[in-house]
Amino acid sequence: MGMTITEKILSRALVEGELVRGTRIGIKADQTLTHDLNGVMSYLVLEAIGLKQKKVATAVQYIDHNMLQSDFKNADDHSFILDMTSKLGIITARSGNGICHHLHLEHFSAPGKVLIGGDSHTVAAGGVGSFSVGVGGFDNAMAIAGEPFYMTMPKIVNVRLTGKLQPFVSAKNIILELLRRVSVKGGIGKVFEYSGDGVKTLNVAERSIITNMGAETGATTSIFPSDENTQKWLKAFEREADFLSLEADPDAVYDEVIEIDLSTLEPLIALPSQPDKVVKVSEVAGLKIDQVMIGSCTNTSVQDLLSVASILEGETIHRDVVLGVYPSTRTVIREIVKRGAYEKIVATGARIFEPVCGGCNGCGFAPPSGGVSLRTTPRNFKGRSGTKDDQVYLVAPETAAASAITGVITDPRALGKTYPEFEVPEKYISDKSIFIMPENNPEQVVRKGPNIKPIPELSDLPESMEAPVSIKLGDDISTDFICPAGALYLPIRSNIPEISKYSFQVVDPTFAQRAMDAKTSIIVAGHNYGQGSSREQAAIIPRYLGISVVMAKGFARLHLANMVNWGILPLVFKNDSDYEAISQGDTLKLDHFDLKEGEDVFVRNLTKNETYALKTPLFQADLDAIRQGGVVNMLKKKNAK
Amino acid sequence: MGMTITEKILSRALVEGELVRGTRIGIKADQTLTHDLNGVMSYLVLEAIGLKQKKVATAVQYIDHNMLQSDFKNADDHSFILDMTSKLGIITARSGNGICHHLHLEHFSAPGKVLIGGDSHTVAAGGVGSFSVGVGGFDNAMAIAGEPFYMTMPKIVNVRLTGKLQPFVSAKNIILELLRRVSVKGGIGKVFEYSGDGVKTLNVAERSIITNMGAETGATTSIFPSDENTQKWLKAFEREADFLSLEADPDAVYDEVIEIDLSTLEPLIALPSQPDKVVKVSEVAGLKIDQVMIGSCTNTSVQDLLSVASILEGETIHRDVVLGVYPSTRTVIREIVKRGAYEKIVATGARIFEPVCGGCNGCGFAPPSGGVSLRTTPRNFKGRSGTKDDQVYLVAPETAAASAITGVITDPRALGKTYPEFEVPEKYISDKSIFIMPENNPEQVVRKGPNIKPIPELSDLPESMEAPVSIKLGDDISTDFICPAGALYLPIRSNIPEISKYSFQVVDPTFAQRAMDAKTSIIVAGHNYGQGSSREQAAIIPRYLGISVVMAKGFARLHLANMVNWGILPLVFKNDSDYEAISQGDTLKLDHFDLKEGEDVFVRNLTKNETYALKTPLFQADLDAIRQGGVVNMLKKKNAK
Repeated sequence: MGMTITEKILSRALVEGELVRGTRIGIKADQTLTHDLNGVMSYLVLEAIGLKQKKVATAVQYIDHNMLQSDFKNADDHSFILDMTSKLGIITARSGNGICHHLHLEHFSAPGKVLIGGDSHTVAAGGVGSFSVGVGGFDNAMAIAGEPFYMTMPKIVNVRLTGKLQPFVSAKNIILELLRRVSVKGGIGKVFEYSGDGVKTLNVAERSIITNMGAETGATTSIFPSDENTQKWLKAFEREADFLSLEADPDAVYDEVIEIDLSTLEPLIALPSQPDKVVKVSEVAGLKIDQVMIGSCTNTSVQDLLSVASILEGETIHRDVVLGVYPSTRTVIREIVKRGAYEKIVATGARIFEPVCGGCNGCGFAPPSGGVSLRTTPRNFKGRSGTKDDQVYLVAPETAAASAITGVITDPRALGKTYPEFEVPEKYISDKSIFIMPENNPEQVVRKGPNIKPIPELSDLPESMEAPVSIKLGDDISTDFICPAGALYLPIRSNIPEISKYSFQVVDPTFAQRAMDAKTSIIVAGHNYGQGSSREQAAIIPRYLGISVVMAKGFARLHLANMVNWGILPLVFKNDSDYEAISQGDTLKLDHFDLKEGEDVFVRNLTKNETYALKTPLFQADLDAIRQGGVVNMLKKKNAK
Repeated sequence: MGMTITEKILSRALVEGELVRGTRIGIKADQTLTHDLNGVMSYLVLEAIGLKQKKVATAVQYIDHNMLQSDFKNADDHSFILDMTSKLGIITARSGNGICHHLHLEHFSAPGKVLIGGDSHTVAAGGVGSFSVGVGGFDNAMAIAGEPFYMTMPKIVNVRLTGKLQPFVSAKNIILELLRRVSVKGGIGKVFEYSGDGVKTLNVAERSIITNMGAETGATTSIFPSDENTQKWLKAFEREADFLSLEADPDAVYDEVIEIDLSTLEPLIALPSQPDKVVKVSEVAGLKIDQVMIGSCTNTSVQDLLSVASILEGETIHRDVVLGVYPSTRTVIREIVKRGAYEKIVATGARIFEPVCGGCNGCGFAPPSGGVSLRTTPRNFKGRSGTKDDQVYLVAPETAAASAITGVITDPRALGKTYPEFEVPEKYISDKSIFIMPENNPEQVVRKGPNIKPIPELSDLPESMEAPVSIKLGDDISTDFICPAGALYLPIRSNIPEISKYSFQVVDPTFAQRAMDAKTSIIVAGHNYGQGSSREQAAIIPRYLGISVVMAKGFARLHLANMVNWGILPLVFKNDSDYEAISQGDTLKLDHFDLKEGEDVFVRNLTKNETYALKTPLFQADLDAIRQGGVVNMLKKKNAK
């Protein structure tokens, strides 16, 4: 039987289990990717388990998220990271020299390689044919330590692309179209594997836009074949040796097929405040805007910015609009300077920032109160921009640029400009000095600033529990809600007791105190709990606040793994109507936590005098870990012996 | 009798008094300069007094300070400012398009003109022969409203420059040398007027570096003659019509003469944490550094960055150092892009930010805990960087660039490189679209975000008072100490009740609560109280916290004016030894506030049973205003009638 690209890569990387859909498998990473925001926790874990040297072939650290440096905290994190990576043998990109996913795509991502990265958009590497999975800081640490990464073998969906994109309809619109069709939970438990004639019309950077934002569907990952375009990309970065031709066998078996005809796509836009609320730009054209942000790991390749510069050339930004541009890497900046595009953009009045994540997760450039912000970022969850009552719309760079000129949401085709052709060049600027090579000095003194607090002590799960529902939530609760993004909160991610105070800040600022007062409590939620960013603090801080159980209609994959690591039991309602029956404040009783894979769990509502049947989505190994307070606790105990 | 440049300009601008040293004069501004950080208060004042249209010939607003936008607050301030300026007929630079002082120097500053600006570094305009004075937000508002600006006619000091700077010893070293000689209080009550053969060796941008940082001496302002170099500068910005030849008469009378032979200067450095702790770079060479910041209104002209690029060309930043560069304006960026310098700088691993004030006052790029930061900024007051235990050294761009390569403090001459020649070009890039022209619409709806709070109600001074000393301070207390800088505090400057909680945060975080509890209290301080930034919040928030009197050995000019506006009585010890006698917590008694200019004031220390003689440095008009709770209160009452 023929194999998909996913199966070809995983069959090589498999170290535990079999490639049977829905079963637990362990795979070995070829590469790891870590950034500063989630990396501190990873290194605290590695320090706790006493790792001396990284045990993965290629480990790369980036410093791109917490870049505002409003006080000592960010810079202290950077110092800690530099010392730890130098000690452990991990390559580190200089701070502020580029966004991790695009830098990795330029310098390390390779077809056929398994990449485990401590960020949900790690999946950007799928654009070059790498099997890339976003994980929490703990799983990232384990991958650096050479341990297998455990996951559920996903279903494999074939996304067949036909035709060719029309002028002013760039790659971002393909993934917006997929989100429109499948929703933010449509990818859960799945890999999106691209094929079809349309694939060859897209270069690697364009493919990466699609796989990157594939994260928003909840998919395990997305992946493109590796072909002559892949080879051209690698060659342009002096990495031809990394090339490997890779495509699905003609008789590969897919679980599902989705067809997208590129030639029929129009400029699309995701309305506030979910990435799947997608409509045509023309349907909302004319709405007055306050701010435009072109940037993030999703969109600001050289091609994106040349396209933007072409639209902006000779124009002046509308007086009521502020345009902020975050190029993705130092190389992108140097390339657009060389080609005159930087000059065209800056001359319009745009604010060009350093190549970092910036405003995407609220690390600066927050819109005004109630402000309408058009962004090329992958996410628009409420409050993620740093402004609680924001109105963030997601668009392609062309729509963003056109709207910055007119001051209202504008279909870029309406301006009557010429769409520039783009061809990946034979060679990009060689920019190896972005990376600091580790000194591999086990005696390296590690600076650890006062805001970097040790991992908190976590108890085992009790035999049984009786506890109140401290918060009841709806569908699609993102990790941004559980653990807030934004410049005010990101610097305290290295300090669990402090960041815990702001859990569910956007939804209900009284939650943290209520949970603390209750000592032990339960969260009840709808579908797709824990979508979005990979931040494991979204598991650690509820756990720190005494949450032992989350009962939901469904969970996002990445967050589920974080719950296992940090010891929160996920339970799924067998009947969605039971979710309706529970009220916030109800006292629930669970008789025993000694759970078996596949067994039903009965929860008694003492307040309402009702009983609900639930099941756990976990494998036995995961359940055993949770019983001991999570994988982290389990390892700590093992090391203590 | 011959006239100085100062006298020539002031004799034209004079509307009250006579040009007699030490007497009170009123002058009329030709231009005003306002930025976002202090501007919100100015517009709240103008709104309160109901101004319909600006009444100064040229009023320009800049948005360059509060640029991080960690949440809605900064962007809300920007929206408020845009609406108010549009309504009042004030030209506004697009946000993030340049630092006010350098943008003003490029586009508006003109020889012979009086500029009143809401920032202490307004004096940068002295480089082009403008008589420029930094004031608080209220005086700035009054100047916009066409009211006279009142000040003490300063003494005039002639700074005679001879010789020519040696390679790698740039203009910054001249002002560091002056600071070394006269200290941070050496300029109080004085104007530094430059002359001598050395003047013609300096172009306008270089002169502006000197006048800008002249603020650090406490001087009222600094001014250069207007000559062929001035003409060349104006011509390069298409402003030849603004040219006016201006120099002191040969028989002008100066109060003092200082001689500086430029050819003998070496690279200098101000040690932590005062700008006058100046030594030769060679004396501290070799000290390991964590961070380098090239930027601020003081240094990042085109010439500065070409010099930096020349040193950095082909190099890589030291692995233990982070180099951050803030070019000063959009035009500077475009010019250095055009000349290839931008590429040379970014290729080294430097982080190039947008052209704003940035890290200079802690709005980002804070060093790590205890970090050594080399900066080209004008100030290094403790904690101003955003990190409380910072170690900030002030240097010229050449020293900064050289040290970024080596990782230790380095005399730039030691690298054996070639120093580039620089000549102001015939023409700089024409960049008029930086400015948004006002719509002059009196019906303009003004957006006012929830963090913008009205000016607090202030009471009259009582007949007499008995109150404790809530804090006793040393010499050179900067406004950064009284009202903290840094990204955590700057966004709440528009909200007096909130920012008041952080008064003296760096020195004594318990002060605010203690003062609140006392209801009325007194501050006791040493020499030069209120040096540094023009922020009037440094007067408003102590006043809000119940401070009615500050007793000190001496006051900084700008802060003194803010105290008059907001109603705090400044008293100067007649015997410095009385300062020593008072302890924090002592209860003091003042019999009457009905003060007369020049009269002694007797203060009884009830705790120690002693009496001290003090005097007030104010004129009668100022004392009358304070009696009524300050000029702001007086005007509010007048308007209410």
